Amino acid sequence: MLYQVEMTVLLPTDMPEAEMAEIKAREKAYAQDLQRQKIWRHIWRVAGQYKNISIFDCRDNAHLHEVLTGLPLYPWMKMDVVPLCRHPSSIHEDDR
Amino acid sequence: MLYQVEMTVLLPTDMPEAEMAEIKAREKAYAQDLQRQKIWRHIWRVAGQYKNISIFDCRDNAHLHEVLTGLPLYPWMKMDVVPLCRHPSSIHEDDR
Amino acid sequence: MLYQVEMTVLLPTDMPEAEMAEIKAREKAYAQDLQRQKIWRHIWRVAGQYKNISIFDCRDNAHLHEVLTGLPLYPWMKMDVVPLCRHPSSIHEDDR
Amino acid sequence: MLYQVEMTVLLPTDMPEAEMAEIKAREKAYAQDLQRQKIWRHIWRVAGQYKNISIFDCRDNAHLHEVLTGLPLYPWMKMDVVPLCRHPSSIHEDDR
Amino acid sequence: MLYQVEMTVLLPTDMPEAEMAEIKAREKAYAQDLQRQKIWRHIWRVAGQYKNISIFDCRDNAHLHEVLTGLPLYPWMKMDVVPLCRHPSSIHEDDR
Amino acid sequence: MLYQVEMTVLLPTDMPEAEMAEIKAREKAYAQDLQRQKIWRHIWRVAGQYKNISIFDCRDNAHLHEVLTGLPLYPWMKMDVVPLCRHPSSIHEDDR
Amino acid sequence: MLYQVEMTVLLPTDMPEAEMAEIKAREKAYAQDLQRQKIWRHIWRVAGQYKNISIFDCRDNAHLHEVLTGLPLYPWMKMDVVPLCRHPSSIHEDDR
Amino acid sequence: MLYQVEMTVLLPTDMPEAEMAEIKAREKAYAQDLQRQKIWRHIWRVAGQYKNISIFDCRDNAHLHEVLTGLPLYPWMKMDVVPLCRHPSSIHEDDR
Amino acid sequence: MLYQVEMTVLLPTDMPEAEMAEIKAREKAYAQDLQRQKIWRHIWRVAGQYKNISIFDCRDNAHLHEVLTGLPLYPWMKMDVVPLCRHPSSIHEDDR
Amino acid sequence: MLYQVEMTVLLPTDMPEAEMAEIKAREKAYAQDLQRQKIWRHIWRVAGQYKNISIFDCRDNAHLHEVLTGLPLYPWMKMDVVPLCRHPSSIHEDDR
Repeated sequence: MLYQVEMTVLLPTDMPEAEMAEIKAREKAYAQDLQRQKIWRHIWRVAGQYKNISIFDCRDNAHLHEVLTGLPLYPWMKMDVVPLCRHPSSIHEDDR
Repeated sequence: MLYQVEMTVLLPTDMPEAEMAEIKAREKAYAQDLQRQKIWRHIWRVAGQYKNISIFDCRDNAHLHEVLTGLPLYPWMKMDVVPLCRHPSSIHEDDR
Repeated sequence: MLYQVEMTVLLPTDMPEAEMAEIKAREKAYAQDLQRQKIWRHIWRVAGQYKNISIFDCRDNAHLHEVLTGLPLYPWMKMDVVPLCRHPSSIHEDDR
Repeated sequence: MLYQVEMTVLLPTDMPEAEMAEIKAREKAYAQDLQRQKIWRHIWRVAGQYKNISIFDCRDNAHLHEVLTGLPLYPWMKMDVVPLCRHPSSIHEDDR
Repeated sequence: MLYQVEMTVLLPTDMPEAEMAEIKAREKAYAQDLQRQKIWRHIWRVAGQYKNISIFDCRDNAHLHEVLTGLPLYPWMKMDVVPLCRHPSSIHEDDR
Repeated sequence: MLYQVEMTVLLPTDMPEAEMAEIKAREKAYAQDLQRQKIWRHIWRVAGQYKNISIFDCRDNAHLHEVLTGLPLYPWMKMDVVPLCRHPSSIHEDDR
Repeated sequence: MLYQVEMTVLLPTDMPEAEMAEIKAREKAYAQDLQRQKIWRHIWRVAGQYKNISIFDCRDNAHLHEVLTGLPLYPWMKMDVVPLCRHPSSIHEDDR
Repeated sequence: MLYQVEMTVLLPTDMPEAEMAEIKAREKAYAQDLQRQKIWRHIWRVAGQYKNISIFDCRDNAHLHEVLTGLPLYPWMKMDVVPLCRHPSSIHEDDR
Repeated sequence: MLYQVEMTVLLPTDMPEAEMAEIKAREKAYAQDLQRQKIWRHIWRVAGQYKNISIFDCRDNAHLHEVLTGLPLYPWMKMDVVPLCRHPSSIHEDDR
Repeated sequence: MLYQVEMTVLLPTDMPEAEMAEIKAREKAYAQDLQRQKIWRHIWRVAGQYKNISIFDCRDNAHLHEVLTGLPLYPWMKMDVVPLCRHPSSIHEDDR
């Protein structure tokens, strides 16, 4: 089941650089692992912003919650979640 | 170049059914043609709303404008456009 | 899977009374049928408003979309959908 | 008498982990006690957010105020309260 | 039990004057009857607006809903309801 | 002359308890003194919030300003002020 | 006593020109009469908008209400009222 | 050329009193000097708020910018600027 | 003196096509004439919207008002005006 | 390809002056270099605000992202990006 999630990152400007680099490295590894599992289907950057737009494919709402709150950057993120379904005008049987 | 577009449809409740059906049929044909040309990459329905979230792949801003304003439902739509770019955490060279 | 849906009804004040009564009767029958099927788990009125807060139990996002757009009052409703999951502090295994 | 309450938790990211764990444990005990007393009728998590949607059954507005301000997490919460009443389309005499 | 209600009136500018006068007369009679019953405790005009701020004293949320939806002007009103309780700094045992 | 004032208190969560208690005690004394002078006509708590709704009876706008900025909690308050006047549907010659 | 009032005019685009001209002429006469009485102290146009920013000098809130609702354009206006008082940094004893 | 400017002051509650007094004294001197030069035409306090509404008479946009950013309190102010012009209903040739 | 103006066009969907074409033709002629006079310095389309972002170079606020309200499409436009000045980081003495 | 970007600077009021001066100097050099490369086509100050409105000419969305996030002040900026295209009423073949 698909969800669009918009993640806005709000890191404090005085966070030590080493700490920031370490969290971002863990974030990237986590994100890539979920992409390989086909759970995190797409991730795009919003031009000019520290924000991404992503498409998740989860078993249900609880699974989505678990995946999102597991993000290393989660405590500094604002999340906007939109539940999606297939569009009748889509030419794909299953557009993930 | 990718853009996320959120389209909210606001049809007047007193539009004659035949007219509505005719516009929607043209809209569907137009949308499917653009999907076959790989310009309209994804289209998903927002659950519970008369609204879709789509990903467009256009040559530039002018091309996007031409594609969106050509929609038969355009006069009744509210458009929200977000310019996107590749995310450094994406495992895909080119995520369309 | 649970969703909270807030439905705000915006009927035009000049709709003929007979038409309004007929739509509301169909709406009530539809709502009660879904309650008997255990899909529409709860429905409460917001005090002082022509608005309800409801809990739906659907198979997935597509099922929710089908149920909501089938409402006879749907063309005059503003929908706000919130995907829910079990809360770890709940004393119920399964709170529907 | 029923109320829908939406609670959004805004904990500072630099709160010591031990302090956070201690407050959350007290919060959980408090919430479960009120559930056993049938005052806190339902609690659901909003998927992807540190937020819950709850249904309270209180004697009156003052009782609701006392219950909410007694929450250990209250100083870090944004509260949105909606007074509810029975919906005429409900098939339950008394939907709690 | 007390509630503050803010009522904003949005009458169409092309409503025939006789119809408008008739509705307003019924509204006034209804409002004064509820004031005599001590249900509608206070009503003040917001300076410069077609809006009032009122204090209602009702048995419960359902009673408030019944009172408000019974207003002749209800179909043209936007309602904002705030549940109130006694303030600990009040010098009145019971401030109605 | 009457004004409705909505006061939202935003105290920092790390203010020392003794300091907080001292300010609140002064606030209460100040509020009760103004109530005895019939300047602060009503004060109600908004259920579930650290917020009150009050009715002030002042000589003019300058008097209201002086009264509000004299509040010990003023530096931590968000104020919303609404100038009121007698409502033609009121059954009271002078509703304070 | 002074108030700032921001008036935004929202005339329907299909109002007959003669009717519009007649209302505007009455509005102008009414505004100029109040200026000569020193009640409407200042009126400025907001550049590019059908909106003005004005300063009124009224006996009290009720007087302001009477003056504003007497405007021929009142039914098509959105009003924002701000109660003012003398600023301690003003070099004028009485700045009207 | 006239501008309406709304200035909202947001001083941190923990600023040392001596520092606050010193900035406010400089602010007052600066404001009074500009009033004597007929650049700062009017300044009114918004009742109940730490906010003023002012009318400036500047040579052009750049002059306004220079005047506003020179305010000692500027770093703690939120500014809302509205360009004004003469209103055709004004009885004053030149309303400053 | 420069201003940024954002113009959003809100034409009713049932305006006769001939009328719409005639207004747009007049709008275009008016816009091009002002461009040739170097008053309307730039005009860009917002991609996907019936909206433009423009830069005007006017003698003063009154001149801007006259230019904007003279637009044939003015009655159907929402205007957002921002007064601009030279930026100290600009490499142009005079950036129009 | 053109974009309008609105940049609002939110520097903490307690940043040491030397640090602030150093960042601003780097910002200015960076901005002027991009102007000389014809990437940053225009930059104007919003009168009265610590905000600019700029026009960028970039190869694509990714190029814009790289340019904006490279700004020394980027961590303290709120960015609003609007993709632009040529307006059919423009008298310039190519309005940069």
